[in-house]
Amino acid sequence: MIYKMTTNEKALALHEKWNGKIETGSKCHVASREDLAIAYTPGVAEPCKVIAKDPEAAYKYTIKSNTVAVVSDGSAVLGLGNIGAAAAMPVMEGKAVLFKEFGGVNAFPICLDTQDTEEIIETVIRIAPAFGGINLEDISAPRCFEIEKRLNDALDIPVFHDDQHGTAIVVLAGVINALKVTGKKKENCKVVVNGAGSAGVAITKILLSFGFTDVTMCDRQGILCKDDPSLNWMQKEMCNVTNLSEKKGSLADAMRGADIFVGVSAPGIVSPEMVSSMAPDSILFTMANPVPEIMPDLAKEAGAKVVGTGRSDFPNQINNVVAFPGIFKGALEGRASAITEEMKLAAAYAIAGLVAPEDLNENNIMPEPFDPRVAEVVSAAVKSNIPS
Amino acid sequence: MIYKMTTNEKALALHEKWNGKIETGSKCHVASREDLAIAYTPGVAEPCKVIAKDPEAAYKYTIKSNTVAVVSDGSAVLGLGNIGAAAAMPVMEGKAVLFKEFGGVNAFPICLDTQDTEEIIETVIRIAPAFGGINLEDISAPRCFEIEKRLNDALDIPVFHDDQHGTAIVVLAGVINALKVTGKKKENCKVVVNGAGSAGVAITKILLSFGFTDVTMCDRQGILCKDDPSLNWMQKEMCNVTNLSEKKGSLADAMRGADIFVGVSAPGIVSPEMVSSMAPDSILFTMANPVPEIMPDLAKEAGAKVVGTGRSDFPNQINNVVAFPGIFKGALEGRASAITEEMKLAAAYAIAGLVAPEDLNENNIMPEPFDPRVAEVVSAAVKSNIPS
Repeated sequence: MIYKMTTNEKALALHEKWNGKIETGSKCHVASREDLAIAYTPGVAEPCKVIAKDPEAAYKYTIKSNTVAVVSDGSAVLGLGNIGAAAAMPVMEGKAVLFKEFGGVNAFPICLDTQDTEEIIETVIRIAPAFGGINLEDISAPRCFEIEKRLNDALDIPVFHDDQHGTAIVVLAGVINALKVTGKKKENCKVVVNGAGSAGVAITKILLSFGFTDVTMCDRQGILCKDDPSLNWMQKEMCNVTNLSEKKGSLADAMRGADIFVGVSAPGIVSPEMVSSMAPDSILFTMANPVPEIMPDLAKEAGAKVVGTGRSDFPNQINNVVAFPGIFKGALEGRASAITEEMKLAAAYAIAGLVAPEDLNENNIMPEPFDPRVAEVVSAAVKSNIPS
Repeated sequence: MIYKMTTNEKALALHEKWNGKIETGSKCHVASREDLAIAYTPGVAEPCKVIAKDPEAAYKYTIKSNTVAVVSDGSAVLGLGNIGAAAAMPVMEGKAVLFKEFGGVNAFPICLDTQDTEEIIETVIRIAPAFGGINLEDISAPRCFEIEKRLNDALDIPVFHDDQHGTAIVVLAGVINALKVTGKKKENCKVVVNGAGSAGVAITKILLSFGFTDVTMCDRQGILCKDDPSLNWMQKEMCNVTNLSEKKGSLADAMRGADIFVGVSAPGIVSPEMVSSMAPDSILFTMANPVPEIMPDLAKEAGAKVVGTGRSDFPNQINNVVAFPGIFKGALEGRASAITEEMKLAAAYAIAGLVAPEDLNENNIMPEPFDPRVAEVVSAAVKSNIPS
């Protein structure tokens, strides 16, 4: 009998074979003394002198125009938690691979040997000259909120925490199409977001920007209430714009009568009864990885109409890879100084629009990640929404 | 009449066309959901978990084993001086190109938006996890000495300031072959090094390690004397190991009767009379760029036997590109934690040895930079001299 390697075994063997998933390559050949005199000394002094006079010329003569730093402190890596900078490298290299393969964007992993908020901020500011954008990755909440905000304030290049906004944009794309499938109107929908970490907060914010008004956030302790002393500052802020009727109670209480559930929380914590208690034609995005909050077949049996997960072996995969490569491609091409709420909404609409009306159904609300149009369409949408 | 572009014009036009001289590439294809599951989630968690338990495994599963950071603060770029981080990028990208093209080593430019010694040190320490080595570049003296030393103490990967040691190694290689050509013995040679910045200090140190005993350093004010209050701490330290007879005087005084002159100083400051005052069969390395301390033909007329410069349009070009790619290649392959004096001497001997005895003459003491053996031979020499 031939032994078949599991995905994990194959991943380990291939990572060893690759010995690093990315490499740097040269766009210019240096095969003669003349080549050397142009790509290096003395010729290289010319673009240096121009940039010294006009910093904007860096976009013309250097990699800045199309290069992103993938920055992590290794504090919240995948489902693995706080594994540190060195152990986070395979993920950040993987992200760099996806930037290049899906968006044609150069990306380089910067894994930081510090988890201090101030040190992370000052370090990223100091290394920024080489980069046209900063993709923050796998930095734990609530530090990630402050780090992103402060970096966006300090730098004139876009800073984007993909765990927050990439996820939020793709969820919103799925929600847009799920509304079409179910005929629900956003003005009338009750929405529950479970998991008040980086993704949950960003999802809630983009759903509010999109136009939902009745959104309730839950976390381990149930419905988020502003008098709960265990909440962090961001969770407290979110209480000002969510759960406006100031309900208290469990996740089950929150879900009763809800139209939409978005889970970025923990495996198996949603029961069939909780799904049955939702409004008819309910929509669930159960994105705990690798095991969702409730398995799609169980949710369907309990009355859900549309179910999306983070997994590729079920319909409606919610996968950031349809968002971040195109978002940075568009932001870099349009020389955006930040990625605004409008650019994020435009990206979500663009992703949703990639599913043609005739193909749209409860089991097909998301575009195929390998559809070559994705990054093009997303990038065009983002670029055309850069504020002037 | 057809207008022929100058090298500088061509350099500017090509830098605009390249729009960044390097790019990141993917060593793994991601063309299917299965590929994605191996290079990214969920498979990528496996190497992460192994590295979290055993940090050494980073060399097996990530780019660390073959990737160097090219770090500059833009404070002493080529002959341009303190032009800052953004303007230094074309040089650092060029360096990254040479690392890859000549040594097969991946390199990425890190241009730091700070010129504070402490901030540079802490920033490089924080970004080190992704890298197997740090190449410092174009950082002004005397800060470069402290930055390099402190980083070498703090990190377990090699830290190498190429302006110092790359230059010193290549000069020593030239000196070794010039001694063969002239029949001079190092024990009997009087050596003068003019220019007491980063390169001059490192050249002096390696010449002493090699076995010269009578070395005199000069700078703008003439012979370096320890009672000169204008000297920086490194120049004062150098006074303890050079000019042991405590001569005072001008550069012309120092050169009288000298066998070897090494200039890393300023154009045209050596006169034919100064060369004539040297010992017979004198050896000059006049490396001010682009105009040497004295033009080679003038030096020859005045009695010099061997003359090397930094230029490719004269014989005996002293070019770091024959050193740093092979040095890092060897250090990375042998997992060196530092680049020791022995490794540097071995590199110099290896470079000198690339000129076969039958080819060796006063106009041919250096190997051709494009000789494909160079990086191989240098890397093997460096690797076999890593302390166990």
